[in-house]
Amino acid sequence: MYGYARNKDDLMNRLRRIEGQVRGLQRMVDEDTYCIDILTQVNSVTAALKAVGMGLLDAHVRHCVTESIERGDGDDKVEELMSAVARFSGR
Amino acid sequence: MYGYARNKDDLMNRLRRIEGQVRGLQRMVDEDTYCIDILTQVNSVTAALKAVGMGLLDAHVRHCVTESIERGDGDDKVEELMSAVARFSGR
Amino acid sequence: MYGYARNKDDLMNRLRRIEGQVRGLQRMVDEDTYCIDILTQVNSVTAALKAVGMGLLDAHVRHCVTESIERGDGDDKVEELMSAVARFSGR
Amino acid sequence: MYGYARNKDDLMNRLRRIEGQVRGLQRMVDEDTYCIDILTQVNSVTAALKAVGMGLLDAHVRHCVTESIERGDGDDKVEELMSAVARFSGR
Repeated sequence: MYGYARNKDDLMNRLRRIEGQVRGLQRMVDEDTYCIDILTQVNSVTAALKAVGMGLLDAHVRHCVTESIERGDGDDKVEELMSAVARFSGR
Repeated sequence: MYGYARNKDDLMNRLRRIEGQVRGLQRMVDEDTYCIDILTQVNSVTAALKAVGMGLLDAHVRHCVTESIERGDGDDKVEELMSAVARFSGR
Repeated sequence: MYGYARNKDDLMNRLRRIEGQVRGLQRMVDEDTYCIDILTQVNSVTAALKAVGMGLLDAHVRHCVTESIERGDGDDKVEELMSAVARFSGR
Repeated sequence: MYGYARNKDDLMNRLRRIEGQVRGLQRMVDEDTYCIDILTQVNSVTAALKAVGMGLLDAHVRHCVTESIERGDGDDKVEELMSAVARFSGR
């Protein structure tokens, strides 16, 4: 069972809302909405996805990583975490 | 008619693919996929959205902004463009 | 003469302040400051640099790019601008 | 003693190099270098700073955070870490 299990419903709701926002973008394109207005909406979907990613990272550290450190074998988890953080922060 | 009109089909295809990726994320959560694997997929959806945003900006500058400068009234467009670039690059 | 020429003093002042902040970071490391406090300061230097970059882009579009479009040969400038925007926004 | 203590020399060298790059930017402005060339250099200083931040985070997790979890009181450290990660990744 993974970190996000405790917030599975919340996570699912966020992802469904993001799916709706992406469909909204298709509608905007279809209806020839002004470029900058579509771009504003693209930025807000990106922000919502970043928040989902941050929530996953958070739950992962609080549970999976913490528990493996407590069991005395956190090294691989910490290694994996730090490359995930690097990719997540766009490096 | 806006800048992206010339690439409307391509833009729509990208957005449909992104919608599919977001549904894929829901499936991953539903099937209790490992946190870091979901996060990797979140990063790739974010990158796809950033590419869509970049394409919109590009078409906007090449058409809408260029044309208003050519008509001699580009000031407002340039103003609006620069705040869009600032928001897009996360500032 | 380039776009930023009109704001050269302001730009220089910002860069001198950033140089001072980077020296401040060295002092923090030298004095064994707590990691998270150094990181907070790193983030604020990064933000200051991003603001300098945004100012350069802004002046570039308002002058260099606008003027070449007005002269009827903006294509290369627009091309170059858009790859600069892509790199600047971390893509 | 903090996480980065083991790499203090390396960290100092990076920060001195960054200071040199910032002085290089001042020289470029002073010599009226082309905007886009300055911007390219701004991006590379930003990347160097991001690498310093990533190194600090990495050392912090491997030492400070891991050790407090091992001592059984990691909660505050994890809390603090996750807000640092959020700020670092630009959210």
